[in-house]
Parts: sequence; C-alpha cells; structure tokens
Amino acid sequence: MSTSSETANIIENMDNLVGDGTLLRFQPFSSCLDPNFWFKVCQLKLDVDKLEEVHRSLIGYYDSKSSPFVSLDCSSFNQEVNYETSSKYIAHGHCLNKNTIDSFKNCDKNELLKEFGERMLNDFRSGKAIEDPSIIPVFDILMYSDLKKFIFYYWFAFPSLANPKYYLTDTPTILKNTFSAAQFDLLVSGFQNLNINQRGFFGVVSTDDGNLKVMTLKQYIDVLQNNVENDFTNYLVFADPSDLLNNPGWPLRNLLYLILLHCPSIRNSVLRVIALRGSPTSKFSTSMLFNIKLSSNIEMGFQPDDIAFVGWEKNSKGIFCPKYVDLSKTMDSKKQARESVDLNLKLMKWRIAPDLNLDVIAQSKCLIIGAGTLGCCIARNLMSWGVRNITFIDSGKVSYSNPVRQSLYKHAHCINANTYKATAAAEALREIYPEINSKGVVMSIPMPGHAANIDDHENINLLSELIENHDVIFLVTDSRESRWLPTMLSTLHNKLAITAALGFDSYLVLRHGVVVQDVSTNEKKLGCYFCNDVTAPGNSLVDRTLDQQCTVTRPGVSSIAGALAVELFVSCIQLKYNAPANATSCLGVIPHSIRGFLCDFQQIMPCTPSFFQCIACSLKVVNDFLNNREEFLLNVFRNPNYLEDLTGLTDLKNKFENIQILELNDSDVEDSETYNDQTVTAID
Amino acid sequence: MSTSSETANIIENMDNLVGDGTLLRFQPFSSCLDPNFWFKVCQLKLDVDKLEEVHRSLIGYYDSKSSPFVSLDCSSFNQEVNYETSSKYIAHGHCLNKNTIDSFKNCDKNELLKEFGERMLNDFRSGKAIEDPSIIPVFDILMYSDLKKFIFYYWFAFPSLANPKYYLTDTPTILKNTFSAAQFDLLVSGFQNLNINQRGFFGVVSTDDGNLKVMTLKQYIDVLQNNVENDFTNYLVFADPSDLLNNPGWPLRNLLYLILLHCPSIRNSVLRVIALRGSPTSKFSTSMLFNIKLSSNIEMGFQPDDIAFVGWEKNSKGIFCPKYVDLSKTMDSKKQARESVDLNLKLMKWRIAPDLNLDVIAQSKCLIIGAGTLGCCIARNLMSWGVRNITFIDSGKVSYSNPVRQSLYKHAHCINANTYKATAAAEALREIYPEINSKGVVMSIPMPGHAANIDDHENINLLSELIENHDVIFLVTDSRESRWLPTMLSTLHNKLAITAALGFDSYLVLRHGVVVQDVSTNEKKLGCYFCNDVTAPGNSLVDRTLDQQCTVTRPGVSSIAGALAVELFVSCIQLKYNAPANATSCLGVIPHSIRGFLCDFQQIMPCTPSFFQCIACSLKVVNDFLNNREEFLLNVFRNPNYLEDLTGLTDLKNKFENIQILELNDSDVEDSETYNDQTVTAID
Repeated sequence: MSTSSETANIIENMDNLVGDGTLLRFQPFSSCLDPNFWFKVCQLKLDVDKLEEVHRSLIGYYDSKSSPFVSLDCSSFNQEVNYETSSKYIAHGHCLNKNTIDSFKNCDKNELLKEFGERMLNDFRSGKAIEDPSIIPVFDILMYSDLKKFIFYYWFAFPSLANPKYYLTDTPTILKNTFSAAQFDLLVSGFQNLNINQRGFFGVVSTDDGNLKVMTLKQYIDVLQNNVENDFTNYLVFADPSDLLNNPGWPLRNLLYLILLHCPSIRNSVLRVIALRGSPTSKFSTSMLFNIKLSSNIEMGFQPDDIAFVGWEKNSKGIFCPKYVDLSKTMDSKKQARESVDLNLKLMKWRIAPDLNLDVIAQSKCLIIGAGTLGCCIARNLMSWGVRNITFIDSGKVSYSNPVRQSLYKHAHCINANTYKATAAAEALREIYPEINSKGVVMSIPMPGHAANIDDHENINLLSELIENHDVIFLVTDSRESRWLPTMLSTLHNKLAITAALGFDSYLVLRHGVVVQDVSTNEKKLGCYFCNDVTAPGNSLVDRTLDQQCTVTRPGVSSIAGALAVELFVSCIQLKYNAPANATSCLGVIPHSIRGFLCDFQQIMPCTPSFFQCIACSLKVVNDFLNNREEFLLNVFRNPNYLEDLTGLTDLKNKFENIQILELNDSDVEDSETYNDQTVTAID
Repeated sequence: MSTSSETANIIENMDNLVGDGTLLRFQPFSSCLDPNFWFKVCQLKLDVDKLEEVHRSLIGYYDSKSSPFVSLDCSSFNQEVNYETSSKYIAHGHCLNKNTIDSFKNCDKNELLKEFGERMLNDFRSGKAIEDPSIIPVFDILMYSDLKKFIFYYWFAFPSLANPKYYLTDTPTILKNTFSAAQFDLLVSGFQNLNINQRGFFGVVSTDDGNLKVMTLKQYIDVLQNNVENDFTNYLVFADPSDLLNNPGWPLRNLLYLILLHCPSIRNSVLRVIALRGSPTSKFSTSMLFNIKLSSNIEMGFQPDDIAFVGWEKNSKGIFCPKYVDLSKTMDSKKQARESVDLNLKLMKWRIAPDLNLDVIAQSKCLIIGAGTLGCCIARNLMSWGVRNITFIDSGKVSYSNPVRQSLYKHAHCINANTYKATAAAEALREIYPEINSKGVVMSIPMPGHAANIDDHENINLLSELIENHDVIFLVTDSRESRWLPTMLSTLHNKLAITAALGFDSYLVLRHGVVVQDVSTNEKKLGCYFCNDVTAPGNSLVDRTLDQQCTVTRPGVSSIAGALAVELFVSCIQLKYNAPANATSCLGVIPHSIRGFLCDFQQIMPCTPSFFQCIACSLKVVNDFLNNREEFLLNVFRNPNYLEDLTGLTDLKNKFENIQILELNDSDVEDSETYNDQTVTAID
C-alpha cells in the first residue's frame, strides 16, 4: 500500500497506534483536476456565463485503489455519468466561478461552507441520498479564472459534518482475515450486479454457512431499522479511496452521519464497516474491516445550531488556502495564443457588444492587393479582429525605406534586395500568430496604359480566381491604374472591395458597391473607386519626379486609413456585404466612404451611387469582359481610349471639353542596358 | 603597357599597321565614378536642388599612366582644384540631373551634345582655353538619379569636333629614341615648374645642343604664330591618358583643333606631338612621339554649319547608350536604410511642405511609458517620422494575446512568458531600423492607491531622470492612476506630455500643457489629462471583471489614436512645445486634444485650460513634491484623500456632494500561495 509523502503529510496527526476507543479520523479527499477541466471552464465563462456568476453541477470520480483523489475533467460538466469510468465511483458537486479575484477572496468562507453543507444535509434528511448513494460524497469548488493569463484560483470543499465523533473498538483488520475466498467472490459478483449509483455505498449480510448477500444501502438501512438487535452479521460497505491502514476515507464520514440520521436507535452500537479497497478484478483483496463505535454522548444535530461543517481542502503545503494552477506553463504555445486572442475578442460580447458576430469575422477570407504600408497595417488590424485567412498579392521586394513604415518587414528583409513582400508579409503574420492561414502571391497586377507583359494573361486568370475565392478584397496598391482590374473583377464576382488611398495628409477609405441580390429592394448600388472619375486609368508612373513616385505621406495617414478600412469592413459584415450607405450595425454606422484630413483632423463620410458609365464597375465593362475576354483585354491594354469609348465617356467628354489623355509609353525604365535611343551621334 | 580587354574592345577598329597617311584615331575617354560621387549627387538633389534641374560645374581628373579614365568623386563638386591630386590632370565638366526618367530618356541627345560642344568651342575661340589649358578636355554628364533605389542612370559626353581629320606621317615612336636622358630630366623639371593648370598641355623647344626648354601652351602658340617656318624643333606636349601605342588619347583631339583655330597658317604642316606618358617620377619614360599631318582639305568650321560634335560615351558593351549604376548592391545596408528613410522624409520638403523642420523631429528624444498596443504603434509612427531616440518604460512581459495587437512583438516572445516588453520593443525597433537609438527600461510606475513597493523610491528617481532627459513623454499605460506620477513629473520638468487613452470604440489624444516661459504673453497653460477630473486616482484595478481588466477595444482605435498622438506631436514641435491650442504649424492646426468615435467616425477637438486645483499638474502639487518629496509621496501612496485634501478638492466636493472614494486594497493578487485568509473553518 503506497503512501505518498504528500498524503502522509496531510494525515500527519493520525495515530499509528490504534485500538479500542481510538478516535476515528478520516483521510480527506484531495482534488485532482485535469487541464481540460480548466479549458472547459474557460469556454463556458467566455461563451456562456460571461458576466453571470453561475452555479454549475459537476460530476467527479474517485476510486478505491489507494488514491484519495476526486478527479474532474472536461466531462465533469456533462449532466450524464460517463459509464466508461464504471470502475470508478461518482461524486456530485458544484462550482461557483466568481467574476473577480476580489469577490473570490472576500466572500465569507464559513458561510459558503455552511451553504454547501446544508444543501447536502437536505438530501440526507429527505432520504434522497439513501435512494441514490452517489450523492453522499459531495464537493464544491469556489473558483476565479484569470482567463487572460490562464491562471485559475480555486478552493475545493468536501463538506462533511464536524460532529459526531466516532471511535474504533479495535485495530482495523484486513477483510481477508474474516472473509473466505468464496465470500470475496460473492461480494464481487454482488457488487457488479448493483447499479453504478449504488456501488459506492451498500450493505452485505453474511450468514453462518458462509453465504454472503449484497444489498443496496436502502435495503441495509431497512435491516438496521427493523432489526436493531442483530448479531452484526450485517456489514456496511463503502468504496474507500483511503490509502491509510487505520483511517477510512472521507466518504464514510458522510455515510455514518446518514445512517445515524435515519437509524437513531443504533447510536450506541458498533457497526461493522467494510472499506472496499482494490478493484473488482483484484477481488477487492486489500479491503479492510473497521469496527466502529458510534459515540453515545453526541447531539445528533437536528437543530441547526448543533450543526457545524468541515471540509475546505488544504493546499499542497498543508495550509487552508486556495490552490492555483498556471496552465500557461503546460499549454501548447499555439493553443495559448489562440485562446488568448479569442479571449480578447469574446470579452467584447460580455458587456459592450453582445450582438457582435465574431464568427463571420473569423471566417472571412481576406485578399489584400498591395503589401505596402497600407497592406501591412490592414493585415495587422484584421488579425487583431480575429480574421484567420489572409492572402497578399504584391510583385515588389522589400526595400530599405520600407520597414519603418511597413509594419511586417524588418531590416534583414532588405539586405540583398531579394525578399518578395507578399511572401515576407505572409510569413510575418505566422510569426505573429502561428495559427493564421496566410499566403503570399508574387504577382503584378496588369494595368491599363502599361505595356502588356508576357504573363498578363496568366495573371488575370489567377487574380480572377483569387478574388472569387475570397470574401473581401482590399485595394491598397500605390497607383490608380493598378486598382482597375481588381475593381472590375470584384464587381464581376460580386465581392466586397474596399479601397484605401492616401494623400500627403489626407486619406480615403471607400467600400465599393456590391450588387443587391434582392431585386425587390429599391437600393441603388454604391459607387466604386472609379465611379466619380471620367478618365480611364493611364500610366501614371510615367514622367514622375521622385516625390511623385514615392508615397510622400505623413506617416499617420496610413495607420489611420488602414485601421478605418478594417473597421468599415468589420462593421459592414455585421450587417451584410451590401449594406446600404449609412446603415447601422451593432458596431455603429456603416458609411460608404470616409475621407479624413490630418491638417485639421476632420473626417467626412461622402456617399455616391454607382455611375452607369463607370470604366471599372459598369455593366458594359463587366459584360464586355465576360463575353469577349481576350479581345476586351487586348483593347484595354493597347488602346488608352478604349474604356472611355466603350462606356460612352468619350462622347460625354467631347460634349464638354477636350481633356488631354496621357500618352502610353511602353519603354521599360528598369531595362536601361538594352535601352535603345535613336538620337545618338555616331562616334568618330 | 597594359591594355585592358575593355578598352581594347572600344578601340576595336583601330589599325595595327600604321604609317604615312594613316588616319589618326584617338582613344576616347572613359568615365570612372567613385560611389561617393553618387552619394553627393543624392545629397545635393535631396537637400539643395530638389525639383530644380540644376547644371552643376564639376572637376574630373585623369592621368597619363595608361588609363584612359576621367575620374570623379564627391570632391568633383568642389569649385577648387584638389591639389593633393597634383599628379593628375584636370578636366572640367558639367552635370545636368534630370527630374524624371522620362525627361532623361526623351531629351534630344544631338541637340544636347551640340550645346555642350558650343560651350567648349566658345572657350576655344575666345582664347580662354589657351590661357587655361585645363579647360581643353571637357565632359558633360546627363543623369537621372533614382534616389529611392540608389540606381543612377547617366551618360557621359566628352565633346570634341568631328572634323577635321588628322593623319600620321610615320609610325609613332617612343620618345626615348629621340630624347636623351638629360633632355628627359629637363622635360620633367620644366613640367614641374608649370602651374598645375598648364601641365596637361604645353610646349617644348629643343635646341641643337640638346638643351630643352618647357613653355606654356600660350608661349608655344605664340611661337607657332610668329615662326611658321620653324624646323620642327618645337614640340607640342600633352598628358596622354591613352594606353594604346599608335593612338593618342582624346585630349589631343581638342588640342589640335584649338591649335588650328588660332594658327590657321599651319594647316598643311606636320606637328611633332609628344604624348606624355608615365609620371614625373618615372620621368615620363613611356612617352610617345607622334608626327601629325594636319589635313589640307578640310574646312575649319568657323561657320556653324560646318561644325559637328562627337563624344557620347559607349557603355560597357560598346553600345551608345546610358550607363547605370546600382549602388544599393555595394552600400552598407545600414547606410542604405538611413539614406532611404531620410529620402522619404526629405521628399516632403520638395513640393508639399518646404518649411517642414525634419531636424527637430529627428533629434527629439521620445519617452514612451507603456509598451502595449499604443506604445508599439506610437514607436512605429515616430520611426516613420525619422525620430532617432526612443525609450520605452514597461514592467510587463509579452503575453500570448499581445502580438496580434502590439506590433513590436511576435509569438516567439510569448513562449515561457519570460520576455519583458520594454526590452523586446527596443530590440524590435533595432531590427526594423538598425540606426535607431532605442532603450527599454523595465520598471513599474508607482501609483497612488497602490501599495508602495520596496523599489518605489528608486523608480520615482529613475522616472524623474528619464523624463528630464527626454523631450516628449507619451503616456500610454493602461490605467488612469499610472499616468499620475509621469504627468506630475512632466509638469515639474516642463516637458511636453501626450496622453492617448482608449475606450471600446473611442479614443482620446491630448497634449498636456507646457508652461509658457514668456510671461509677457497672455496665454493660459493647457490642461492635463487629470485637469477635468475631480477624483484622485485610486486603485482602479481592484475588483474588475475580466472584460474590465483587459483592454477591450475595437482594434482600430489604437492604430488611430497612436497615429494621431504622433501627428499631434510632430505638428506641435514644428511650432513650439507650448503651442497654444489650435495654433497652426506648417502641418496644419495643433489642437489641444482629439476625441474620436468609431461608431460614427467623428472626431472633435476639445480644448480645456489647466485647472488650478488639478491633482497632477497644479502648482500646489508640484511644489509639495519639490519641497517635501519623501513625505509628500508617502502621503500620496498611503492616504487616498491626500491629493484631494492638498488641492482643496475635498472642500470643493463637500460643498456639492458626497462622492465615494474607492478604498485602498493592499493584497497582492498574484501571490495566492502566501495568501492569507482568516475566515477558514478548521478541518477536523
């Protein structure tokens, strides 16, 4: 029989020498909590209880194999007994999860234990505990969960009655001295015939001829009540978790009280008690026999004043004090990150925004076209909101000026000028949050007014597919013309697109209109980035001075515009992807666009309907692409006026004024080694 | 004599067999640019020229040691000759730095070369080139600097006249065949007596007795003009960069034209030309003698129509085409980062904000108290603005929920819960930009209403010192009370403090008032974070549910508030640290505070003066700290009402209402193992 030093310590005061008249001391239960118990606590607190301090029923298990533990795990919260644990015994309990560490600390522990005990006592008095002995051993947990740090403060009580006292009549003996092997066999088979609720506490009648009959606790009590002067061939049996020779486990303490309560006439008798130890397969071979004298001089406490409860658990140092467990030390780091991030978001629903739909955010597939200052900022804000699927498109490499403004890159990325932004950004997201599903697609966006590249056709197909497979498209490239194709394709696939664009000290965030599927509504589609613009995108990169090529902006505009783009998206999808302008979700108003100015810190929210002649989102353009794809694109890339001709903008313009269209220029700046200049004087 | 394969390639068409009547061909100059030439180009473009396309004078150097290169470095921009390079010869030139790659490509190269050549020809015609022969070899550089990528496109022209043609009378010989050692000595000493400007082109008279006299070019031309029928004991001498035996270098081409221009009578004569090769120390021992017949059938081109110029340099592949250099590949990565980051900022001054003072920003020493979501965001925005000195104060460690919101941390920081935020943040800044001077101070801010810690005294001294040594203090901790001491100390040291504070979907950014030193003004000090508040900071961390403990905010608010805090700071210091509310800097209005709301995307800019009874910034409080430090702090930390009593707020409040002050609580939540609870029932 193993006695761990810990339990030995707990029982430090117990006598080694016992005999007639020795005070009977019980080995207390110890609590044993599986980490998944606490994960269930987290989940229930976060998703169900929130700010309510809920009393919850629990089922714990203990066994009779020399381990005085009541074990709980995540299944303890189930209201049905787990029959797979049928070699174990059931203990019923409750937990009370306090909201704050202070209310946990400051509540009156005496009062609480009394409350726990009274609840048990009611079941004892009513006889319910006789019908269902599994409610004889009870426990209560007072707890506080620091879900932020994965630290759990808790204090178990195993309520029992402080009185009466019980005494041994002699040294406990092993049951083998009394029972024959045949009797053990009968004990085991009788035990196995009992309902699982009855197995922790029952009775045995042994007749002179060695026969042995198992009966339920109720039957046993009936025998006691009707046959007080029996010759002690009746045994009271309980499944004993104790690992001490002379001390039965805590369940007997409650059992004896229950017996006394219902059989007051046996007050001064001696009870033969079998402490069932070991398992049915080992035929309970280590079971003990205790002969227990019920003291004659006690008050049975039917008056409330007579009743006192004991049962708070000591901590591992043997002090009456809460235990705590720091699960962060044992948790897989990715799981910890996931739980922690989810926690921060779920807390919003506790009090401030109970209607917030976090799932629709988490499940959104977000495509970010342009992994620059805005793209990085938007990805970070999306991750903060719990978005789990982010794809970047960018053809550029990280350059030295990037890291101080583009928050997913660092100096090491710039060295050798060989790191693609899209892949580096996707990788950076995983370094921030390993559970993110992030991808980087190195691809340039074909642009009207720029020379068609050999891989444009392939890129258009890929872009179209990417847009189709995502839920929202953030358009944050650094030129107007690179937004044209994604805008058109987002319209084609009926996806929400959000544009963010920067000036030196101003910003624009605009959600493109999504077609209202429900034709019965009278809502007009909202405009896209190009709807207010009557010039087809040309090559704006030509003939720009350095300050025009670089994004010369006050650093604040990108942080603000990136954050607003994500907030607008999150607010919008709380309602629907095609929310009308200035509709309201649980997060507030959902404007069509937000324009802000750092020079006076003002923001305005213009709203414009879609323009039927828009060169990016009009039906004419989308249909031409659908019906005549190859030729349409060839025309767009080759002929700077094509889109304006197609949509009728050319006619419109001719009516009013002559606007000079930027000329196309197909020479490639980078390729100066093969650069061909006709105006060279021959050398002599 | 070494002939590199590259120069051999350039001269591919030159004849190996030469003799009487062979057309004289000149080895062209090649350009050779030190990288520091380009750094100077960058600096001038960024800081001086900006959008102007400035023609700049340059000085280049070449030598006569078999290397046909004109070398330029950063000193080429100096207007004085570098006499340390006196073993070299001077070439004068100009550069024209175009603003855009397109204007670089599209300008008319013929026209340009003509312009360059005419400028030279004017100096030839006026005789200026005779007085100062160093202007005979000239060069011009057309360039475009991609300062963003450190790529420079450039095209050298070494203008010369296409006509007339010159012919050799015989195979060139080495000068040693003609001159004795004594004559070489006289040549060298005569050379060394020449002014440095004269050394590239001069004359020699050799008399029959072997005597030899060096004369200036002007003297030589005088001889020619006055003594046409001389017996060719006069030699024309030029420092020859050529490394080819039969071909003199490019400078001779211009020299011969100059001679013909001023001595038309020698048209059909033969000139003895010494190509000075080697160095004075080697006594020009490899010099060559060319006998050159000036062709008789040429037009001397005094009519503009007769004149054609040659001289565009071929690139390394022998094609007439610009060269380019990608300095990014050779630059130290830290330097590249610095240059690139500075570039982005300096471009603001080109067009948009010429009055922007970047130095005052770069030199600001910024102290960020709280390295959380806001602190990280503020540090990043400061770096984007070019701030070079950032110190973080924080006592916390990086936890799992942090990285998705706190942009300087990643998952790896959370594992083992052992990374201090302050140090990790400082390190992260260096990873982003190695030149940053960042520090992390792990320290908790002593707070009124919280139990005094053993190291509070030390921390107060350290905090005071840190505030004194910085220019701006960002207050971005997560509780109100932790801002009290830094607010008071910032007032004490008369430093600008900026508070950013978040609600669920709202934010406040506020600059604390700085005392106006100039008493003559009537400006009132602006309020601090506490000025509108009539309750001393207590322990707001007590009895908070999880959602109150965590910063439950929409992610956007911190990005926006962090950005606004930095923009407000930058705008404010453009004017002065104590700018009045709503004063205007070159960046726009400087409000006292900005409050924003994500629920309707509105921002307002409230302004409040300081409150003479403020518990943080009033004279009474600061003076009490100054005069009675130990006792004052003891009182503040011990007595929750002390600050209110001191400032008279208690009286004020009593007049109007009874406000319940939060009680102090000095138990430490973390330390539950030693947690002491008196209300425990003893176990039996």
